[in-house]
Amino acid sequence: MNVFVIGVGLIGGSFARDLRKVEPNARIYGIDANISHLEEALSLSIIDEKADYSLLPQADLVMVSIPVDQMVRELPIILDAVHDEAIVMDAGSTKSLICKTLENHVNRRNFLACHPIAGTEFSGPSAAIEGLFDGKTNIICEIEKTAFKLQERALKLLQEMGMRIRYMNPVAHDKHIAYVSHLSHISSFMLGKTVIDKERNERDIFDMAGSGFESTVRLAKSSPAMWTPIFRQNRDNVIETLDEYIANLQSFKQMLVEDDYDGIYDEMNNTNKIKGILNGIPLNK
Amino acid sequence: MNVFVIGVGLIGGSFARDLRKVEPNARIYGIDANISHLEEALSLSIIDEKADYSLLPQADLVMVSIPVDQMVRELPIILDAVHDEAIVMDAGSTKSLICKTLENHVNRRNFLACHPIAGTEFSGPSAAIEGLFDGKTNIICEIEKTAFKLQERALKLLQEMGMRIRYMNPVAHDKHIAYVSHLSHISSFMLGKTVIDKERNERDIFDMAGSGFESTVRLAKSSPAMWTPIFRQNRDNVIETLDEYIANLQSFKQMLVEDDYDGIYDEMNNTNKIKGILNGIPLNK
Repeated sequence: MNVFVIGVGLIGGSFARDLRKVEPNARIYGIDANISHLEEALSLSIIDEKADYSLLPQADLVMVSIPVDQMVRELPIILDAVHDEAIVMDAGSTKSLICKTLENHVNRRNFLACHPIAGTEFSGPSAAIEGLFDGKTNIICEIEKTAFKLQERALKLLQEMGMRIRYMNPVAHDKHIAYVSHLSHISSFMLGKTVIDKERNERDIFDMAGSGFESTVRLAKSSPAMWTPIFRQNRDNVIETLDEYIANLQSFKQMLVEDDYDGIYDEMNNTNKIKGILNGIPLNK
Repeated sequence: MNVFVIGVGLIGGSFARDLRKVEPNARIYGIDANISHLEEALSLSIIDEKADYSLLPQADLVMVSIPVDQMVRELPIILDAVHDEAIVMDAGSTKSLICKTLENHVNRRNFLACHPIAGTEFSGPSAAIEGLFDGKTNIICEIEKTAFKLQERALKLLQEMGMRIRYMNPVAHDKHIAYVSHLSHISSFMLGKTVIDKERNERDIFDMAGSGFESTVRLAKSSPAMWTPIFRQNRDNVIETLDEYIANLQSFKQMLVEDDYDGIYDEMNNTNKIKGILNGIPLNK
């Protein structure tokens, strides 16, 4: 089996590492706009060979893991190039525009719209880790638009990697992922900014930061090149989540202003039920 | 050496566990308003004996780790009861009101105002872990008000536990800790609330949450009984941090509304420097 990974960063690289375990005979080709990433992926044995689009007709499986603005530009070209039995999967954190862009593509049946809910705050091939997808959820959109035989092959592979499959329409996906992923990134970036701005001239202050601070600002390490196009594509949903988040923060602040400590206690106590929810989230091993 | 731990939860319990390693001959007495916590601490061998305030005159060292509203009520009583060579330390996340409350106490010289920057989102004796303080920072306020001989004994002990000591005045402590700890807790609680409110009727949605969401809302598991009095005592500083955080979120939202994606990229790129800062934060092992 010839596997092409387009974008050999954290997600593409981790996919290649896991694929090697479940398909030991696969030959893995890497394509990346960043030549040094491609060299690095080769030297780390993430890929077997550097490639470019001219080799795509040999692909049996293509994993596309590039920023979502590039995804809408490149996926139609990739689908043009592959043979009739090839399956092309993506890993984009938005699904609506991608599905919309491909809806009338002559090879739409070769495409499986995926969002593996897996990752870390790091990027590039050196961030790729084995087992990243094990136990994680993969949201698949518009499964019915993918050829039946190709659905079957792709699902078998994802399940062998240990993924739990969930089906969802792309509009619902983008709406909900804004709450459980995109908003977390903005809250983290702005928390980091607030503290950096304040403490600019008082370096010692970070001696006072503990693991709680680290946890809430961890996502502020994430790649702007990956996240700017996500926020752009999911702009309306993200604005809605931000409005609600800001309103909740303002209401918390108002309780402080009014010395309403019973209200503050209740607010935190009600939110403590997040414990049960978080227990169900699979973490990196 | 007779050690009294008042409040045998996460912090007091972890302190007792670490103390046992560095002072194997210490006899550890526990005092707690919650009788079942006291029983639990005894059965977990965190303490050697249950006690009450009537035994305090036997104490050589007292660690007070109770919510900060109870701290300002109990510390004067505890200081009244101890003998002349005893050292009383606290672990409160606020320092101004505590120091102010004790400034004219006849036994002020027996008190060392401490804030060990260590913890987890869990609470109670079962949350106590060995090595919690190893490598962590302990902020000590108004060291000059503690008797010289007692300073020396306390610092030796804290250093043997692996803590890095930093000195700060209580007003500066409360101002800075609002940014690097208190604000993180509110951002996390309100993020949890925003998502819970939205997804109330759509339970499947949490299948879409990954480790990034988990990280940003982890602190929303924290104890309201501990955190309400912290926000109350540090009200003015916390309001200031919230104003700045909300303004940053609003400005990020405005860039989305105006489709200013260069601005959004720059904002995230500038905040990425948090990477270097976070690398210096000691985490739980």
